[in-house]
Order: sequence, then structure tokens, then C-alpha cells
Amino acid sequence: MNAAVIGASGYSGEELVRLLARHPNVTLAAVTSRSLAGKPVADVMPGLRHLVGDLEFSNSDPAELAARDDLDVFFLALPHGVASEYADPLFQAGKTIIDLSADFRLGSTAAYEDYYGQPHPAPHLLQAAPYVIPELAGEKWKRASLIACPGCYPTSVQLPLIPLLKAGIIKPSGIVINSYSGVSGAGRKVAEDFIYCERNESMKGYGMPKHRHLSEIEEQLEKAAFTDCIVQFNPHLAPMSRGISTTIVTKAIGSLQDVYSTWDAAYADKPFVSVLPSGTYPDTKYVAGTNRADISAVYDPRTKNFVITSAIDNLLKGASGQAVQLLNLKFGFEETAGLV
Amino acid sequence: MNAAVIGASGYSGEELVRLLARHPNVTLAAVTSRSLAGKPVADVMPGLRHLVGDLEFSNSDPAELAARDDLDVFFLALPHGVASEYADPLFQAGKTIIDLSADFRLGSTAAYEDYYGQPHPAPHLLQAAPYVIPELAGEKWKRASLIACPGCYPTSVQLPLIPLLKAGIIKPSGIVINSYSGVSGAGRKVAEDFIYCERNESMKGYGMPKHRHLSEIEEQLEKAAFTDCIVQFNPHLAPMSRGISTTIVTKAIGSLQDVYSTWDAAYADKPFVSVLPSGTYPDTKYVAGTNRADISAVYDPRTKNFVITSAIDNLLKGASGQAVQLLNLKFGFEETAGLV
Amino acid sequence: MNAAVIGASGYSGEELVRLLARHPNVTLAAVTSRSLAGKPVADVMPGLRHLVGDLEFSNSDPAELAARDDLDVFFLALPHGVASEYADPLFQAGKTIIDLSADFRLGSTAAYEDYYGQPHPAPHLLQAAPYVIPELAGEKWKRASLIACPGCYPTSVQLPLIPLLKAGIIKPSGIVINSYSGVSGAGRKVAEDFIYCERNESMKGYGMPKHRHLSEIEEQLEKAAFTDCIVQFNPHLAPMSRGISTTIVTKAIGSLQDVYSTWDAAYADKPFVSVLPSGTYPDTKYVAGTNRADISAVYDPRTKNFVITSAIDNLLKGASGQAVQLLNLKFGFEETAGLV
Amino acid sequence: MNAAVIGASGYSGEELVRLLARHPNVTLAAVTSRSLAGKPVADVMPGLRHLVGDLEFSNSDPAELAARDDLDVFFLALPHGVASEYADPLFQAGKTIIDLSADFRLGSTAAYEDYYGQPHPAPHLLQAAPYVIPELAGEKWKRASLIACPGCYPTSVQLPLIPLLKAGIIKPSGIVINSYSGVSGAGRKVAEDFIYCERNESMKGYGMPKHRHLSEIEEQLEKAAFTDCIVQFNPHLAPMSRGISTTIVTKAIGSLQDVYSTWDAAYADKPFVSVLPSGTYPDTKYVAGTNRADISAVYDPRTKNFVITSAIDNLLKGASGQAVQLLNLKFGFEETAGLV
Repeated sequence: MNAAVIGASGYSGEELVRLLARHPNVTLAAVTSRSLAGKPVADVMPGLRHLVGDLEFSNSDPAELAARDDLDVFFLALPHGVASEYADPLFQAGKTIIDLSADFRLGSTAAYEDYYGQPHPAPHLLQAAPYVIPELAGEKWKRASLIACPGCYPTSVQLPLIPLLKAGIIKPSGIVINSYSGVSGAGRKVAEDFIYCERNESMKGYGMPKHRHLSEIEEQLEKAAFTDCIVQFNPHLAPMSRGISTTIVTKAIGSLQDVYSTWDAAYADKPFVSVLPSGTYPDTKYVAGTNRADISAVYDPRTKNFVITSAIDNLLKGASGQAVQLLNLKFGFEETAGLV
Repeated sequence: MNAAVIGASGYSGEELVRLLARHPNVTLAAVTSRSLAGKPVADVMPGLRHLVGDLEFSNSDPAELAARDDLDVFFLALPHGVASEYADPLFQAGKTIIDLSADFRLGSTAAYEDYYGQPHPAPHLLQAAPYVIPELAGEKWKRASLIACPGCYPTSVQLPLIPLLKAGIIKPSGIVINSYSGVSGAGRKVAEDFIYCERNESMKGYGMPKHRHLSEIEEQLEKAAFTDCIVQFNPHLAPMSRGISTTIVTKAIGSLQDVYSTWDAAYADKPFVSVLPSGTYPDTKYVAGTNRADISAVYDPRTKNFVITSAIDNLLKGASGQAVQLLNLKFGFEETAGLV
Repeated sequence: MNAAVIGASGYSGEELVRLLARHPNVTLAAVTSRSLAGKPVADVMPGLRHLVGDLEFSNSDPAELAARDDLDVFFLALPHGVASEYADPLFQAGKTIIDLSADFRLGSTAAYEDYYGQPHPAPHLLQAAPYVIPELAGEKWKRASLIACPGCYPTSVQLPLIPLLKAGIIKPSGIVINSYSGVSGAGRKVAEDFIYCERNESMKGYGMPKHRHLSEIEEQLEKAAFTDCIVQFNPHLAPMSRGISTTIVTKAIGSLQDVYSTWDAAYADKPFVSVLPSGTYPDTKYVAGTNRADISAVYDPRTKNFVITSAIDNLLKGASGQAVQLLNLKFGFEETAGLV
Repeated sequence: MNAAVIGASGYSGEELVRLLARHPNVTLAAVTSRSLAGKPVADVMPGLRHLVGDLEFSNSDPAELAARDDLDVFFLALPHGVASEYADPLFQAGKTIIDLSADFRLGSTAAYEDYYGQPHPAPHLLQAAPYVIPELAGEKWKRASLIACPGCYPTSVQLPLIPLLKAGIIKPSGIVINSYSGVSGAGRKVAEDFIYCERNESMKGYGMPKHRHLSEIEEQLEKAAFTDCIVQFNPHLAPMSRGISTTIVTKAIGSLQDVYSTWDAAYADKPFVSVLPSGTYPDTKYVAGTNRADISAVYDPRTKNFVITSAIDNLLKGASGQAVQLLNLKFGFEETAGLV
């Protein structure tokens, strides 16, 4: 199977290249970037020198890529809006597309327009494009050829919450989420706010109260809860390269034991979700560089709340690792192939 | 006026030494530490070489210190429990004591025992020891000779919340607080969890749901609200040396304009509290090394919550800076003396 | 005395604003920046909110500034080449100018052209502009009205070496210098190489073997040694915001005792140079935020070399702090005024 | 093939566990630690949760381990001195031992005693124990059953220098080496000097002029040069978790082209050494997490020196990665097995 990474100039693209170059079942056959076309990948991603050989960035346009017989699966590491320009012809050509942008994450075109500030670029594809966190999504999605890979914050939120909402163990209303992301969450963005001296020794909130990922979080929580879920989502930047630490406060319906038995049932056979004992806190350090999510919870008898904490690597379980996990599951490879 | 820092071996003690050595109205006359007695301060705190000259750590016991005529004011940078061993004889001797420990922060001895795991060591002094965040405490406390300096997390919480609770602009119930502290919050603690490689690139929660500072936060919020305030307080460790970033979710009663007019009234003439425009987020980087607190708020019409953010330097406005501010105000010095 | 900071948008400019706003003998009367004119300084430098009040950036051109009667001393925090455009009219108008650029650091216009890639922009001013590290420069320079403030790396090199070269204790040939700078050494440069994720957890050399500061280092060492000094200078970037750590290997002529007695004689009464005992290593952490230089040396009997180490804060003793120290000395203020 | 990691409580041990748990040709059958015996490995190394399953630390003594039939190869991640207590009985029992300590790195027992402060603990084994950087060591060593894995600093020095010394392209005398190590170089040492706030934003030298690794460096350089090599070696600590950045100044004999053609010949078919073009600088960021060494050089016509720079991950190519590479080569596995 031959894979292509489209728009590989950012950090998610780099992680895709790293993972696919080592993948036992896949050949990384093309890496594209409009701005880097013709350059050796090893020059742009010196950390991957030992993996990429002489591979160069190519500058294929969507139609050309769709016409290539030698490419089977396409990972889109592109900005929202741009991703659709590729997804559409590739989909028509019968290719498999795993899209890491926001273009196919929302079922509602109204929400897309509200949160992303432009009309949805490819509404006709939405029905065909399942949104998939593999631990939560069942089996049907594997028949799709266009798959929406979830956002980083939303993954850190849904893995602990969705099973609990489905089981009715927490109240769907009044959920408060605080998330802290490493700076790579902003991608390889060259702006004053992201230079070293501005982010080092700095912690701050941003994008409150209506960060784009809120739309994705709420849509998915509501599907699980079968009711409205209006959440407070507070994203922050933390002085580290990678990792998301999320802390969620929810009203308890069931007991802490219910939380754990629900999680154990949901994740017992899932290689990438670790349920930590109550009182042990997920630490971004221990998931960085892995495709794992660590989750944990405490109960506060004073407030009758659960405080739920999770940690993921924003570039792996929050983006490229999850994308490769989707590939593995869709094509029947080992779920962990290329990911440990 | 001659000042002494008692128990100066930790980071708060070091900041006190720095501030007092530069203070225009105070002479730093003694610096004590049981473990460091006899050592030059400059050897233990090389960053202060230019400030401390030949000063050495002394090892005075409480009674000896109380008997010294040449010392007027004592800053206690000691663990809880130990602080009382000094506060008692110093108080009896008529000295001024600014205590940075938890010993006199709580009015309730039951809460002290519950949260600190031992009976209160000096209950007879509690009445005499006001708890003072200077921007919130009025004038009466200046007559006291034993003053409780608030904790770091509680300061970051109370500065934004107390005026709003007093004005009835937020609901006292259901408050959710997430705080992220730089590693110096743990003091100069030598333990595996605090070595560089364990904390670098790491973010995690700890001490949930009943961190010691919760008792202090709730007691003070309840005083302001004249009703119960059961809050959810989630402390975390962040990979930086200094700073606390706090994000608070509260139910709105008044409008965002009410929040800002209340804050403006409370802090217009306060040199150390900056009210930032809604949408500008306090950043620990911009308060590090200062005695300032930055606060800001947004309103979320979807949830009818305010999301309030604050940032302080945990060692300054959260400890030693506030202690010196207390000194300044009590003795009629410029409020900012030695602090800018 | 009224001071102006010209070109204050970078990190050195920010430090100048911080230092001058607190200076007991100086009023910070103007802060200029072409790109930021009209903006409140507090918005651009939020860390200085408590110091700058309502001050705004102004956009004066050189002639206008030279014509202002209310401004006495000008700090130029401008790129090389641009600085001369201001220095010339200000000098003609009889103002005092402390220039932090490279324009007046080199006596040789040929070296300037060689290292900076353009003809010297104001050769007629060179004779009038002394190059001054205050601990090394004697008294005559105080009569000058245009003063060249040395570079950061060169300051970290000259403070330990110049007295030893003058005393003939080290060989002038074969000196090897390795320097490691915090990222603020690149200023507030917005480029991919300086975004957080590129510099975090990264250490690398750059600019070898002919970094611009080499010209300044060699010219000054040669003046002290009265002979050629061809040195190997290896600059590097280190993952921290501030600080320069320099390690120098030189052939010994005298003994280690000679090194220390020479340093002690040179620096005994200098408040900003600390001579550390052999075996104690200067640490950037302990000079960060100060105008101090720490220096130390060991002797290696196997190689007959001295290994000399120094540490400074690149933005303070390496730039803005030293500039204010120059102001203090020129105008007869306390040498440490505004600097402790 | 069944492998055991002896003394796995430190960072090198953790990396060995990570690498061996993923190794395609090896089963990680035992992980021992006196202090951690009985604890699940996943609890002590939470970052490896997904790799180690239910494996527990065992507390076997040397004799017991030597008697176990189910263990074939032993990695000793022990302090010097202690390693010999295991190496001796394991060697007698015919096991394969890859020792990461210093015990078998030096051929000279006198040097061992001089640098490590104690008589050599197992001089009778020295002849049998080759010192092996695999890219430099030929083939004979593969017959040995006790192999000395080189130190981190020495690896970063020898990879660039040994081929040049052998080819006579650089002068063996007067070499100056500056190395900067991430804090994990000190292992999981719990001491005040290694807590986060002491190392963050800090750069400093240490252990000059006679660091323990100097003995190893000089012995190996002398073997390659067939003459004395008295080098100046300056180790430093840098504020990052992993990585060694080394900068070497040597007198040129040949040309820069000679340097590159020699390196190309030595490393063309070596998967873990990348020769970077002159003017491109090895960056610890790009080798962190890999077993790679990046090397580069510039020539300075003014000094007639080469300035050679290298970067490795101190825990991988500088320790555990190299150990696994040795295993691969000795047993005929792919050289990169388990290492990419």
C-alpha cells in the first residue's frame, strides 16, 4: 500500500512522515508541499534524516494526485478549506482519504460557517465522511473512503467523557473543560506570539469562550448524550513543545466506581487508552511521543462533582498518530502497527 | 527599621532577602536558617551576590530572636507548625511578625486540623492575626503585630473574585477554579518528582479534590459572599519556574460591564492589580518578577458564565512580594517601596 | 535629566525602558519606534504595565529628535547602519548618545565593512566615539558625548581576558572561545528558526567561524595585548530566554594565583563583576536579571591551559544594563543607580 | 533471545526497557532493581505503559542471575564498581554482557584508579572486554561476550575525531573540546542541584579540567593517533532533558575536503552517523529520540583550525541505543533493529 502525505510542511505532517516511513505495511510514496516542492525531505525535517532517504517534496495539484495509480491512501495535513480542494477529486477517484483538517469533522454546515467563518467548502461530501475516534466509533466507518480525523482538544475530551455520557453516569449540562496545549498545537506558525522568548516561562488562556474546537466537542457530546451539551471550554498555551493536559469538571450521577467500570469496559482491550487509578494524574510527559491517552478521575463528595483528567500528545493521538491508527483499522493491519 | 528573615533557605526566603536588601526603608539585619547557619548568604543565593555583601545565615532560636533589641520586624518563611514556634515568643515580645506560613491563615481551627493534619499549634493567637490581601483588607489590620500573608493560589483567586462576590455579580455556588503553578510553588524541595527531567515538558494535576489551599479559598470567599461557597479547585504543575495561571468559571448574575466597573472601582488606585480588557489574557510571563496581579474576564452568552483569568508570580504577589507590601502599608512606607 | 529610547521595539529596548522607568536620576521622556508609533508602551510591553503609565511610542525622525530641547540623553537600540542615521544629527546637536548598535564599536572601517557587509555609515564620528566596558575603560571616555556600548558576547569575553592580557598572564595567541546564548540574543526576530518548538530542547552552533562579534573581540584583545590576537570564536544557541555562558581556553604564562590576584585588583571595587573561587562555575541563572558578570578560572596542569568561564545576562550586562551603567558613570550618578 | 536489564531504575535503564520491549528479535525477560523489586515496571516508567504489560522489577543477585538458563544477554545499567559485581559471575557463566558502566571502558587500571577513585574492581576481565563504538571498531569485538559500551561525551567526540586522527588530517595535540549535556546526563539523581528550578534557564560548566570521561576520550584518541593526545575537555550542563552538543577545535593538517572525504568513507554505509554539509550545524533537537550522531565541520583560514560540531542523544547513541546497536551487530540482527 502506497501512502501520500499532502501538505507536509507542518508539525503534523512531519509526524505523519515519521510514522509512515517506519510503518511495516505501508510505503511512503509521496510527500507534497506547495512551498517546499523540490526540496529533500531530509533538509526540511532533519530529525528524520535516517528515515526518509532521498525523498523529495513534490508539488502535485489535486487533479494530478487523483489521477496517480501508484497512490492508494492520502493523508491531508492541510488547513481547513484547502483540504476540501483535495478531498473532492480524490474521493471521486476512489482513493482513501484520511483528513486531519476540520473540513469533515462537523455534521452541521451551519456550525462550520459559524465557527470557521466561511461556508462549508464541500457539503456534498459530509454524509460520506464519518468522524472517527477509533476507540469510540464502532466498525461501520471502516467502509468509508473519506474519514475525518478528530481535533486534538476534542480527542482529549471525548475519550474520557463519551462512555460516561452514554452510560448516564455524568450530567450532560454544566460541563467545564480546561485544556492546556503545548506550543506545537499552533503548528509551525511563524508569528511574534510564538517565538521562543514569548512562550518560554509563559502560561495564558486564549480563544475563550468560543474556540473552534468547541463546535466539534459539543456536537459529539450531544450525540452521545442524546441531549444538549453546552460546555465551557477554556483552552490555554503551556510552555512545552508537545502534549495536551485536560481537566474536566462534571456533575456526578453515578459513583466513581461506575466511572471506572464504564471506562474499563470501554477500554480494556484498547491498546492506546490507559485508565489510571483514581489519584494518579495523567502527565503529558508520559504520553509524549506515543499514541496513548491516559485518563483518570476523582470524586469530590463536597461538590458531588467528578474531576476527570486526561493527557495526550497533541501531534500523535491528537492528530497524526490517530490518523495512522485509522489507517491500520480500516485496512485490517495490527492496530498498533507503526505506532509503538 | 531592622528586618529579619526566619527560615530563609527556600525560594520564598530568597525572594524576601532580595526584596529587603534593596528596600529603601528597611535594613536586612538577620537571615536565619537552622541548616545553613554560619554560611555566607552569597554562597547559598549566588544570584544575590551583589546585594548581600558578607551577610551570613544565623541560627537563632525563637527565644533569642525575641530578646534581640535590634530587630523590629520578622518575616517567617517557615513550614506550617514551625512558624508558630517563632510567632508565639516574638508576639509576646511585642515584635512585628509577617507570617508566610499557613498557621494563621484560617480562622477555623477545625479546618486547620482537617487540612493540615495536626491540631492548630497556636490557637490563642488566631484572633490577633488578621489575614490580609492588602487590596481587599481595608485599614484595621494595620494595627495588628502578627499578620497572616495569604497563600499563592488563594491570592490568584481572591483578587478577581472577592469584589464580585461582595457586589453580588457572580453566584457563590458552583465556582470551578483551575490553577497552574510553576515548579517553584513546591519550594526548594529535593524529591524525585521535582528533578528537572521529571518536570520539563510535563503538565499534570495533583492534590485533587482537596488541596490545602482550598480551605483558605473557601473561608475567604464565604466571608465575602455571606453564604456557603463550595468550590472545585484543581491545582496543576506546569513546566516553568515561576508563575500561577488561574482560570475561574462562575455563573453570572450581573453583566460583564458590572464585572469591569466593580474591578475598576476596587483597583483603580491599586498599583499592583492590573485589570486587562476582556479578550486580553493574563500571562504569567508578564507578571513574573513583579508583585503585580493581572486579571481579566469574558462572558459566554451560551453558558451564562463568566470565565475569569488571573496571573501572578507565585513567589512575589503570591508570597514574598505581598509580604513586603504588607510591611510597607503597615509602617506607612510607599506601597511600592522595594517592589518595583 | 530626560532620556529617550530610540527603537524600543526589541528586547534590549524593553530592558532600557524597564531600567530607565525605575531610575532615580532620570526621567524616561520618550520611547520611539517607527512600527509602533502611537501605541501605548504598556500594550506592547505588558510586563512593564506598572512602570510606564500612559507613555506612548512616538515616531520622531532624527532631525526632530535632535531639535528637541527637552531630551538630554538618547539610547539607540537600533540595527547597525540605522543607528548612524540618528547618531549623526544628535551628535551635531550636542546631545549625549549611548549607542547599543555595532556602528561605533570598531575602530577599523575596513573591519566594519568586512564583517557587516556595507561601508561604515559614519566614519567621521569614529574618533569621537569611545568603546566602553566601564570596568576596563578608565575615565577619559566620560568626556565623550557619543559612546559605543559593547556587544553581548564581547563583554562576556573581555571582562575576564583583558586584565590578564594586560598583565601578561596568558598567551595572546591560540585563544579558543565557546559562547552559548539564550534565544533573546537574536532579539524579537520573527523567523521559523526562532519559534518555540524549534529552539526548545535544542542546542546548536551557528555563524562559525566568523561571527560579527569576532571583529570586536579581536580588536579589543589586541589593544590590550599590544600584539595580534587571532581567536577561535564559536557561538551557539541554547534553550533558554536569557544569558550568555562563555568558556575560554588560553595558554597560561603566569599561575592561577596570578589570574586571581590580577582579577582581584581589577575588580575589587567594581560592583558588577564577581570573581568566583576556582572550581565554582558561573551560572547564567545567577546573573539573569542583573547587570553582573561572574567570572572564574581553573588551571589544568596537564595542558598548561587556563579554562576561564564567565556568565552575564545578554540583555543587561551584555546590552541595556551596561548602557545605563555608562549613563550613571558619565553623569556622576551612583554606578548602581537603577541597576539593583 | 531473552534479555535482562540489570539496574533499570535510571534513565538509561528506562531507555533500554523501551528499546528492548519493541525489539523484533529480543524478548525482554527480566528487569531488575534492588530498590524497586516487586513493583510493576509500568508504575515506575509510566511512559512505557503500553509496552511493558505486567512486567515487574525483580531483585536477583548476581549469582542467581548467572544461574538462570532462560536469560541470554544482560545489559548492565549500574554504577561503576557495582557493574563488576555482576559482570564477573555472568561472564564466568558464559552469558553475553553489554556493560553501560565505566568499569570496562579503560584499558589502564591506573587511569581507572586515578579517575574513579578506587582500584579497578575486576582487572582480570579487562582483556576480555573490548570497548566498542560500532562504527569505529571493526569486526573482531563480536566474538567477545563482555562488551564495554562507551560513555556519552566520548561517543560525541570520537565519532568525528577518530577517523580524522587515523587519517592524519588533524593534529593530535592541542585539541579543545566543549560539550553541553542535557540534564538526563546526570541520571535520575535526586539532589538540589538537579531540581527543576535550579537547572531551568541555567547554563554552567562543571567538573573541569578533569572530568571522568576525559580518561576514556584520551585513551581512545591516543590509540587512533598512535601518539599522546592531551586534550582540554570542558563539560557543561544545559537546560534541556536530552542531548549532547559538542564543539571541537583542532589544528588542521589536511583540508576541509579531506575531512569530508574521510568522514564519507568512514560513514557512507553507517545508518546512524549523518555527515552534514559544512555550515549546517548539528542540533540536539534533530537527534533526540534517535540513535543517530550528526557531525559537521568548518575550516577557519585565519586560525588554520577546524571547528567540528556533533550532536547525539546522550541516552541513546550515548548509552542505551548504542548498547542495543552492539547487540544487533554481535548477533547478526539488522543493525537498526529496534532502533528506528
